[in-house]
Amino acid sequence: MIGVDWGTSSLRVYRLAPDGTALSHRCTPRGILTVEPGGFPDALREVVGDWITAGERRVLLSGMVGSRQGWVEAPYLPCPAGVEEIAAATIQVPFDGAEVRLVPGVSCRDRHGVAEVMRGEETQMIGVAERIGAAESSICLPGSHSKWARMAGGRVLGFTTHLTGEAFAALAGHTILARMMNPSSAHDARGFGRGVARAKQSGGLLHHLFGLRAASLFAEMPEEEAASFLSGLLIGHEVAAALEEGVAPPVVLIGAEALTSRYAEALDAFGVPHRSAAPDAAARGLHLIAERLA
Amino acid sequence: MIGVDWGTSSLRVYRLAPDGTALSHRCTPRGILTVEPGGFPDALREVVGDWITAGERRVLLSGMVGSRQGWVEAPYLPCPAGVEEIAAATIQVPFDGAEVRLVPGVSCRDRHGVAEVMRGEETQMIGVAERIGAAESSICLPGSHSKWARMAGGRVLGFTTHLTGEAFAALAGHTILARMMNPSSAHDARGFGRGVARAKQSGGLLHHLFGLRAASLFAEMPEEEAASFLSGLLIGHEVAAALEEGVAPPVVLIGAEALTSRYAEALDAFGVPHRSAAPDAAARGLHLIAERLA
Repeated sequence: MIGVDWGTSSLRVYRLAPDGTALSHRCTPRGILTVEPGGFPDALREVVGDWITAGERRVLLSGMVGSRQGWVEAPYLPCPAGVEEIAAATIQVPFDGAEVRLVPGVSCRDRHGVAEVMRGEETQMIGVAERIGAAESSICLPGSHSKWARMAGGRVLGFTTHLTGEAFAALAGHTILARMMNPSSAHDARGFGRGVARAKQSGGLLHHLFGLRAASLFAEMPEEEAASFLSGLLIGHEVAAALEEGVAPPVVLIGAEALTSRYAEALDAFGVPHRSAAPDAAARGLHLIAERLA
Repeated sequence: MIGVDWGTSSLRVYRLAPDGTALSHRCTPRGILTVEPGGFPDALREVVGDWITAGERRVLLSGMVGSRQGWVEAPYLPCPAGVEEIAAATIQVPFDGAEVRLVPGVSCRDRHGVAEVMRGEETQMIGVAERIGAAESSICLPGSHSKWARMAGGRVLGFTTHLTGEAFAALAGHTILARMMNPSSAHDARGFGRGVARAKQSGGLLHHLFGLRAASLFAEMPEEEAASFLSGLLIGHEVAAALEEGVAPPVVLIGAEALTSRYAEALDAFGVPHRSAAPDAAARGLHLIAERLA
């Protein structure tokens, strides 16, 4: 079968053997934002057409491709949700040459009743569920919209989202802080650590943001540290808020190593045990959901 | 004399009688960001040249005009700072036709030793000092960079800054939230109140920001409320952080009514008494500092 993790800014495809082994893997920048309305079948054919020609007849999609801006909108499945519920809620997508189904996103309410949504992360979590076991676990999936989820018995119980990655880009690029940093500069461990340490202090995030500006006026923030300081500050505030809501350590980190390693540093600073999941979580999750559809 | 409150985006000038009465007042959008290097004398002459021709010989400037991007850089005066210290630290600025002096900005350290700076707000606070009396008071000056200051005996003891106004503009205009709001839409009291109430809940600001997005997906955030919700959320987080650091009520609000009224609403939601200072704080402060220079 073909597993597809189709997000906002990238498209990842996996050719999977019946036992779930990834036989091949391709990653392109053809995220859903680059696809014109009506262009999804062609965009998919461009990337996996040769696999379909070679005989693959089943495709399973997950991620933002199931959102209102995607191929077909798949309604959110309320938590708690495990592989059975998710498989049962997949929807068929018209496509010529293969059977294409779409994994729904998952929704819940935070403890104050405010809505929460994810698309794609539920598949990654299904992919690590068998490895983390049945006991309640906390999962962190860093990103533009970072997720902190609770799982037990292989089911996603609930989660909260933090706008951390997007807030970084907006603040680093569109406030007075832009004058003192290059948002794409190399990671600076000292700056990042200072930012996390700052997040542990009182005063609030909005105050801490201005402090970064003032520190530069007094030559107390070297330019090469500034962007990493901001990153550490925001991630530190995210981690602090997540810990306050309660986690069951060790926190399982899912995602690209460049990002999960930052969260590992921040969790270290808070003294919270953590471990990283294998990087093939999405492919594994797609395989496990597809197994239930056979 | 002529009092000048010259900020980043606006230039306000006052013709003041010897007793401090404002005889005339002009406001232009000639903030320092619109002035070319070397262009400050001409920019000032454009706005107050006729008053100088009419016989005014003394000009006192305050605000960002004393920053590195301004006319002449005036070093920050460390807190505590009252009218005597500030007058003694004014610096002379070369100008043909009048004696021009510049009020320095003020600096301090927050409780964790991080630098803090202001330029212009110290003059406004001097302007209200006689009216708030000698006891320790908390002053809030909302803006792009909101200030919360403590004063006693007419002197600024210390303050903290929050990047609230700039964070609003960056988040409303340059994240996924931009799709669901018009940052310049009319104030919506219900949305603002909901945002402040949300700020009082647990979960952290970065989580609350995403909740705004998710609420709109579930039709739980009418478009006309969204921008005011974001404003209330950010101001609510600022107020919560300031209260946690400790204030001496009633909080004195200084600034334009359109903005101080929002902070008044937020302080009401937190049950904290407040009052508004007279709107001529800058002119009064410039007069009082100039008196010490006679």
